[in-house]
Amino acid sequence: MPLPTIEWEGNIEGRVRLIDQTLLPAEIKYIYCEDLKSIWRAIKTLMVRGAPAIGIAAVTGVLLGIKDIRTDDTEAFFKELKNVTNYLGSSRPTAVNLFWGLSRMERVAWENRDKPVHTIKEILLREAINVQNEDKSICRQIGENGAKFIKDGDGVLTHCNAGGLATADYGTALAVMFKAKENGKKFKVYADETRPLLQGARLTTWELMHAGIDVTLICDNMAAHVMKLGKIQCVIVGADRIAANGDAANKIGTYGVSILAKEHGIPFYVAAPVSTFDLNITSGDEIPIEERSSEEVTCGFGKRTAPEGVKVFNPAFDVTPAKNITAIITEKGVIEKPSTENVQKILGK
Amino acid sequence: MPLPTIEWEGNIEGRVRLIDQTLLPAEIKYIYCEDLKSIWRAIKTLMVRGAPAIGIAAVTGVLLGIKDIRTDDTEAFFKELKNVTNYLGSSRPTAVNLFWGLSRMERVAWENRDKPVHTIKEILLREAINVQNEDKSICRQIGENGAKFIKDGDGVLTHCNAGGLATADYGTALAVMFKAKENGKKFKVYADETRPLLQGARLTTWELMHAGIDVTLICDNMAAHVMKLGKIQCVIVGADRIAANGDAANKIGTYGVSILAKEHGIPFYVAAPVSTFDLNITSGDEIPIEERSSEEVTCGFGKRTAPEGVKVFNPAFDVTPAKNITAIITEKGVIEKPSTENVQKILGK
Repeated sequence: MPLPTIEWEGNIEGRVRLIDQTLLPAEIKYIYCEDLKSIWRAIKTLMVRGAPAIGIAAVTGVLLGIKDIRTDDTEAFFKELKNVTNYLGSSRPTAVNLFWGLSRMERVAWENRDKPVHTIKEILLREAINVQNEDKSICRQIGENGAKFIKDGDGVLTHCNAGGLATADYGTALAVMFKAKENGKKFKVYADETRPLLQGARLTTWELMHAGIDVTLICDNMAAHVMKLGKIQCVIVGADRIAANGDAANKIGTYGVSILAKEHGIPFYVAAPVSTFDLNITSGDEIPIEERSSEEVTCGFGKRTAPEGVKVFNPAFDVTPAKNITAIITEKGVIEKPSTENVQKILGK
Repeated sequence: MPLPTIEWEGNIEGRVRLIDQTLLPAEIKYIYCEDLKSIWRAIKTLMVRGAPAIGIAAVTGVLLGIKDIRTDDTEAFFKELKNVTNYLGSSRPTAVNLFWGLSRMERVAWENRDKPVHTIKEILLREAINVQNEDKSICRQIGENGAKFIKDGDGVLTHCNAGGLATADYGTALAVMFKAKENGKKFKVYADETRPLLQGARLTTWELMHAGIDVTLICDNMAAHVMKLGKIQCVIVGADRIAANGDAANKIGTYGVSILAKEHGIPFYVAAPVSTFDLNITSGDEIPIEERSSEEVTCGFGKRTAPEGVKVFNPAFDVTPAKNITAIITEKGVIEKPSTENVQKILGK
C-alpha cells in the first residue's frame, strides 16, 4: 500500500501523522497530532482504526505524552508515564493492541529505569519506530502464511476493513488477498459494507480497487444470499482481540458471518498478528464489548434515517467462538482448529 | 394504524392517494396518482412498498389505466386492459401480490365481458374497493392467528417493514405485534434497520413507536449478537412471495436471519396473507429476484459512501427455505412446519 496509515514524524519532539479515515474515500486528508489529547481523540473518533493501527497509535501516543513530561526525576517521570498510558487506555476498550502497545512502552521504560530520563525518552522513541517497522514485516508474513487459502477462481468474503488502513501499511485479512494477487491468483472479493460506519464500503473497496483486485460491494444482510448463490469459497476477516482459546472479537457482524459460513460449508479464516492475542483471558466471554453512540446508526450519513427518540443498541464488536473458525493466520504460523492447545502450539514457538 | 397507506379516492374517474414512504419518517406526504404512469413510478421507486400494499397499488392502478380507455367496444377494451396489466406487471418482479391483484381484476372483467364497457368499469371499481377492505380484515385476522406466538417478556426480532405501511392499514408481521399489544402482552421488539433502504429504521420503528410498543433499532449485522445475548425469543417477518412448498421470498437479509435463528434455537415465523402464495411454483428456486440500482447502496442517503466506480451487487430479496420456517401465519390459519402438504392443508380449506 502506498499510503502509510499512521507514522511518527521527527525526533522525540515530533508528531504523529495519520490519514483521517472518517473522510475516506471522498477525501484523503492527513491529520497531525501534536499532543496527547489529539491522538486520544483520533482513536476515539475512529480517525485511526483497525487493531494493529491502534497499536501504533498507542506507542506513538505515548511519545506525544512524554514530550510534555519536563522532569528529570525518574520517579516523577514514571508516575506521569502511568497517567499517559491510563489516559490512552481509556480511548477504546475492545482492541487489545491498544493495551499491548501501552504495556510494551511501559515495560521498555521500566527495563531502562536506571538511565537518565532523556535517555529513556530516546529509547521509547526507538521502540515506537520498531513497532511501526515490525508491523510492516508482520503483516507481510501474515500475507505469506495465508495466501495459500485463496485458490484460483475463488470468491472471498470479507467484513469491515482489515487492510493497510487498519495497520501501518499492508493489512491482515487484506494482506492475504494482496499476497495472493502478487502470486498471480485470480479471485473475486465480496466486501460487506459494514454498518454503521461503512468501513467495508469506504475503506476495503478503496484499498482493493487500488490494488487491482476485483471487488464487489454488498450490504451486510446480503452475505447469506451471496453464499447460497455459490459465489463464496472462503471468508477472511481480521480481529480486535483473541482469547487464549481462539475466540475472536472483531467488528460487529463477524459472528453472524461465521454462522452463515458454517451453514454453507465455507471455511472461515481470521488473520491477525500475535499482538492481537490476549492470553490473560480464557474465552471470548471475558472480552469487553464497546457500545457506541446511537447517532452512528440513526444519522450516520449526514441525514437522519430513523425517528427522533428511537432506542438504539449499537455494540461495535461481537465475538466469534473458536468452533466457528477454520484457522487463525498469524505471522508465526497458521493455527488450525483453534483451541487453547492449538493456540499455544503456534504462539509458544 | 391511523394513516391509510394507499387508497382509491372518488368514482371511476378518481385517483389513488398514497403516502410517499421514501420520505418517512422525516415527512408525511401524500402523493396523488392521476394516471397509469404515475402509479407505475410510485411502485417502481418504492413510494408504495410492501407486498399487500403493492397488491392494492395493482388493483387501483388498473382503475387508473381504464380511466383512459375511451372505447365502448368490448374487444378493444380487453386489448387495452391487457396493455394496462402488462405495463403494471413490469414495475416490480418479485412480489406476487402485484400479479395477484392484476389477475384478479382481469378475471373479474372477463367474467363480466357480456356487459357494456362502462358497467365493466364500475364492477372493476367495486372489486378494487373490495380488495382494499378485504386487506384490512385479512391483516386483522393474521394478527389474531399469530398473537399467541408472542409471550410476556419476549424479545421479538423483525426485518424490513411488514407493518401497516406495507398493507392497507394494519400489517402482517407487525399485525401480530399490534394484536399481542392489544391483548396486553408485554414484550420488546428489535428492528433490523434493513439496508439499503432502511425500511426497518424508517418505517418499522416509527409504526411501533406510534403503537406504544417498546422498539430498539439495530443494524442488520447486529442480529446474531443480540440473539447470542438471549434477547430474542422469536423472529416474525413478512413475505413477498411464497412457493407451494413454503419457501418464502422476503426482503434481502431475511434468509440470513433465518439461519441465525436456527443456530440459536429461536422460532422463525412468516406472517403473510394467502394472496402472497404462488402455487404455480413448486419451490423458492423459481422466484425471480429483483436486482436494484447500485446507487441505493453507494449513495442512498444523499451522500456518497463508497468509491466512484465500485462494483455493487444489490439483490432486493432472498428466499428462506421452508425448513428454516417454524410456521407461516395466514388469515386462514397457521401453517406449522411448512411443506407442500401442510400448505395445502390450510390453503385448501
